[in-house]
This record gives sequence, structure tokens and C-alpha cells, in this order.
Amino acid sequence: MLKQVAIIGVGLIGGSVAAALRKRFAAVKVLGIGRAEDRLAQARDMGLLHTASTQITDTAESDLIVVCTPVDRIVRDVRAAAAAAPQAVLTDVGSVKAEICRELADLPRFVGSHPMAGSEKTGFAHAEADLFESAECLMSPTEHSDSVAVDLVRSFWESLGSRVTEMTADRHDAIVAAVSHLPHVVAAALARVPTAEEIQFAASGFRDTTRIAAGSTELWASILLANRSSVLSSMQRLEAELTALQQAVAAGDRDELSRLLTISRR
Amino acid sequence: MLKQVAIIGVGLIGGSVAAALRKRFAAVKVLGIGRAEDRLAQARDMGLLHTASTQITDTAESDLIVVCTPVDRIVRDVRAAAAAAPQAVLTDVGSVKAEICRELADLPRFVGSHPMAGSEKTGFAHAEADLFESAECLMSPTEHSDSVAVDLVRSFWESLGSRVTEMTADRHDAIVAAVSHLPHVVAAALARVPTAEEIQFAASGFRDTTRIAAGSTELWASILLANRSSVLSSMQRLEAELTALQQAVAAGDRDELSRLLTISRR
Repeated sequence: MLKQVAIIGVGLIGGSVAAALRKRFAAVKVLGIGRAEDRLAQARDMGLLHTASTQITDTAESDLIVVCTPVDRIVRDVRAAAAAAPQAVLTDVGSVKAEICRELADLPRFVGSHPMAGSEKTGFAHAEADLFESAECLMSPTEHSDSVAVDLVRSFWESLGSRVTEMTADRHDAIVAAVSHLPHVVAAALARVPTAEEIQFAASGFRDTTRIAAGSTELWASILLANRSSVLSSMQRLEAELTALQQAVAAGDRDELSRLLTISRR
Repeated sequence: MLKQVAIIGVGLIGGSVAAALRKRFAAVKVLGIGRAEDRLAQARDMGLLHTASTQITDTAESDLIVVCTPVDRIVRDVRAAAAAAPQAVLTDVGSVKAEICRELADLPRFVGSHPMAGSEKTGFAHAEADLFESAECLMSPTEHSDSVAVDLVRSFWESLGSRVTEMTADRHDAIVAAVSHLPHVVAAALARVPTAEEIQFAASGFRDTTRIAAGSTELWASILLANRSSVLSSMQRLEAELTALQQAVAAGDRDELSRLLTISRR
């Protein structure tokens, strides 16, 4: 039923939304909005987009607009798109939801989304048409989101293969702090511990544990700051766990250490 | 030049040493020593061993004895093997070296080894003949290790494809604390933070970061306790890094946060 979908921000996620649409819905027109004309042209030449523009006002004819810009630009881009496209339902793909949903709560056509897919790679050159296949997608309507918008956004992600779970933006932020943002912070801290000489002896365990620290710095700084209170509360939970392990090691308490390590295996 | 190699402890590493020897040196007789007759018989039937025994005294004719038992049993098993096989050079594969090398310093035929290969799997059923190919192997002679023993142990690991680096046992323990033991502790702590409800939304980043927490609990408790002082000192370094990140997030200091995340990308 969608005729035109606009994607604002054609990076890894935006490019993958485009690729998924092109693969599954040949009749849907995919419009890409970005800042750099040359890169938009490349994305079009790769077959990700039908048309491209640097002007959000060109989204006017869209039925659905998916804002895929970094978290600190989402509110502004959703507002601009809502003004340009009076009929469009709007959603985003930001990793943080509470602040965005609070600021956009006056816009009934907006529903927050967070497809939990991606990698440490960035840019549309790594776009994958099947990125959302079998992935979790968390959806956070605001208190004023209208039901047509909620249903459309849910159907949209399901049509790309995702399992959609609806929850409040606050609950969303607590979950991603624990399972995504905290691991990133920890990987960053861990990668800083070994000296240059020590790190050459790192094996696969170290590489796996710190791999996600290779994500884009600016992107992650924005995410952590946008989810500040949940991130800090997750860090406190981690600190308590580390302290318990530290005490068991320091005391030579094998039973307690085994207990702490055993629970974590589950 | 080796005629018989004895492997004490036929698990993942011991089994892989056996498999590597069988694949590369058809003329070398591989003897496996273990505690459970039925499992030794299975390892022999799989083609890992020529002969098997539950008695360390059966190592008498060996030229080289590789002790692959858990870290808290290595000293005892090396002593028993040294008594049984008067001509043999002895080494181990323990992940911790200082305590072992100190306790065995009176035995000139002993040289500590730590092949940095393995996985979260355990048991000889997962043995791989190429496990040591292109892997780092850290070698720690004691102050009394004789040069014939050092040369033989070095050649042995090199013949299985490993790159051997010689260093003191204390230096070894500091390195593995930072690049191996600390990541394990952190993965264990991290895996305990999300609630059961939260963890169902964990994506690949969380799984990668916590994968190594799935290793054997008893094995890891022994390793952490045997390397207690270096592990605690690595944990202190991590705590300092986490505190710096925590302060940058709490203060909303984007520049400092980016700086901390950028350094960790390298």
C-alpha cells in the first residue's frame, strides 16, 4: 500500500532499509535524503535508491519517512520532514528513545523505532538487504501516537522480516543500556588496559570482547550521552558485579568465585 | 629426533597437541595419560593416541612430556612425571606461569609454556590438529632451566606452527592478566547485568562481548586464583578506565568521551 518511502540519512542502516525495500517491494519508490550529493549519487548508482535529494522538502509525496540520522539530529530531521510531508507517517531508527519520544510527543504521526541490527561497520557501502531479517525491532509509540501510525510502522518492520516488540521509551532505554550501551563502554575501557607491548599477545577472546569498541566514536558518544541516566545506572550494576568478583579473587574464595562465574554462564 | 611424547591430561589442549603430532610427525609415538580409562580409550579410538594409561609412571620412556592438566594440578603432575621419566624434558601448557615456575625452579629439565590457543570448548572431542598453527606460544624458562630443555621446548612448539616468545614468568602473568584473564572477568560481570527479560533483546555485540564467559567455571576459577595479583592489578586499571568514562558521561562531556572512545578504537 506504500507508494513512496523516504529515507533521511543513507548510511549503514538507512542504506539497508533501502536495500530491503528494493529487494522485497519492487513497486515502492525509494527516495534518499542526505547531505552529500556525490554519496547520494553513489547510493543511487548502487541501486539502493530511485531518487535522491539533499532537501528534506522533497519528501512531500512520501507515505512513510524513516529518519536514519544520528541520535542528536533525529528530532530536528523528524520535525523538518513532518512539515514537508503532511500525510506521511514518521519513524526513526535511533538507539535511544526516551528523549526523542518526549520531544516529539506532540506529533501524532510519529512512532519511535529501534531495529536492533547493525554492525561496527558504517556507510551505505555495507548496506545489506537482509539486515532486518529475524532481527528484533523495538517500537516505542509516544503517548499521542495515533493508532494508524503505530500499525503502519509495525507492519513496515514486520514486512522487512523483523520481530516487533512494543514498549515505552523509558523501558527501551533501560534495556539497550544493559545489553548494548554498557557492553560498548566496557569494550572501550577494556581495550585501553593492555599496553602496546601486551596487546600483541591478545588472542581471539580479547578481540571478540573488544570488537564492538571499533564502532564510530562520534555516533557512540552521542548515543551514550542521549541515554545518560540508564547508561550510568547500568555502569553501577556492572561495578557491583566487578566488585564481587574482585573480592572473591582477593580473598582466594574459590567457592564464591565459582558461583559468580557459574551464574554468568547461563 | 623425538621418539615418544607423553601428554598428561587429554582435554582440548592435550588432545590438540596429540592431533598435531599425529598429523605432522607420523614416526613419533604419542602416549596419553589421563584419569578415566573409558575416555582415554575414546581418544585412542579417535586416532589421537598410540597408547594410553592412567599411570604417570608409564611415561618412563618419553623424550618429552607435555603436562596439559588444569593449573592447580600442574606442579604435582610435572613432579610425578620427572620422577617417572629420568631422561624426559618437561613442559606444561598452563595459562599462569609465575607460581608454577617458582615451585619447579629446582628441576632443570622443566620449561614453562603457554600456547595461546584454545576456545570456550573443552574436551578432546574438540581437538584440532591445527590449533597451534600461527598461534603465539609464550615460553618461560625458570632460572635453572637448562639450555637443552629450552631449545627442545622451543623447537617443539615451532614444529607445531607456533611463534614462540620467551619471557619471564612474571612478565607472562602480567600480559595474560591484561589480554585474557581480565576480559574473562569482565565478560562474566557483564553477563550478569541484564535481567532475564532484558537479555532476550541482546544482539550480536552483547553475545560477542560475553561469549568467553561460557568457558569452564572450575578452570577459570583456578586460573584467576593462580594469577591473583596480576588479575587484581588489571582490574584496578580497568576500574580507572571505567571511572573516566563514567565521569565523562555523567558530566555530559562530549569531547572527553570522544577522546576516551577514540583511543580505544586503535
